[in-house]
Amino acid sequence: MNFSDLIKTRQSVRGYSDRPVELEKLQMLIESVRLAPSASNSQPWKLIIVDDPALRDAVARATFSSAISFNRFAPQAPVIAVLTVGKSKAITQIGGWMKKREYLLIDIGIAAEHFCLQAADLGLGTCMLGWFDETTIKKLLEIPRGIRVGLLITLGYPAEGYALRPKSRKALEEMCAHNSYQHNSPRS
Amino acid sequence: MNFSDLIKTRQSVRGYSDRPVELEKLQMLIESVRLAPSASNSQPWKLIIVDDPALRDAVARATFSSAISFNRFAPQAPVIAVLTVGKSKAITQIGGWMKKREYLLIDIGIAAEHFCLQAADLGLGTCMLGWFDETTIKKLLEIPRGIRVGLLITLGYPAEGYALRPKSRKALEEMCAHNSYQHNSPRS
Repeated sequence: MNFSDLIKTRQSVRGYSDRPVELEKLQMLIESVRLAPSASNSQPWKLIIVDDPALRDAVARATFSSAISFNRFAPQAPVIAVLTVGKSKAITQIGGWMKKREYLLIDIGIAAEHFCLQAADLGLGTCMLGWFDETTIKKLLEIPRGIRVGLLITLGYPAEGYALRPKSRKALEEMCAHNSYQHNSPRS
Repeated sequence: MNFSDLIKTRQSVRGYSDRPVELEKLQMLIESVRLAPSASNSQPWKLIIVDDPALRDAVARATFSSAISFNRFAPQAPVIAVLTVGKSKAITQIGGWMKKREYLLIDIGIAAEHFCLQAADLGLGTCMLGWFDETTIKKLLEIPRGIRVGLLITLGYPAEGYALRPKSRKALEEMCAHNSYQHNSPRS
């Protein structure tokens, strides 16, 4: 599948079958994060694969509450990947408006999307979860002080019949410009 | 090319030929950003394609100085893509340690990497530039108040003979863990 087709099939999957994820595929997903680029090649992340059933269930339950219910599907996923954020290199702290922390988050976005695109290319579904109880997750996964939880990603085979949804996106004119923020995108 | 091969060929390209980038390829790159996922589908970006020679040169020169010289190659690139960051949706402001601004930067990382991977799949080279003189770039590209410059990306065909470098990355044990931050990555 070429990249332009891959990004059309990649979507947030919020329903999973209980088919386990093969170790070989898991290793390809880990490798996709390992090879991700980062500011000054600082690789400020650690990826924790959570598949122990009781632990995974506890982590999944720390991504929703009675008030915040949009992640209620998370316990269905056979694997939860937790992307933690460590320290960046000193060089990434200089310059422009960008601060160390901001580079770190751009890097986390890149690494997380490598994981999700690699999963889609292997027929697996993912969903990035940005809401979670960080204190609980840090305790469950023995994450040291000074290391933050960046994102959680659910992983598994989509539930039977889980459909590819049409993508709802801004029109080209709204998201692209040409030689000035004020001009329309390039055209033939 | 499948995704695991694509991420091996994607690298920062810091030397370009003067061969122009075809409009059709440029449109595929824009589409790869348009389809990128974002927190609550907020799509908080605008992509400015800069290819007017004088303007592109001025933008490129705002990415280095006598003290910060690592982007000195930027004026070689026939195109510079500027990813600006606008506003997120209210819903992405709730929850966890994540603040609105942090989601925005994760989203920018995802969108920028879509651009770079799509380029690699089309035989084009890119380099993300995180250091730049934001005030100058905002003025050159007529970017309104309240909109920030997130990242710049150089784009073009790699210079003749530009080689694929081996990737220098952390070992698996350093960047991956299994069911606890303290345990080794999953193994067969």
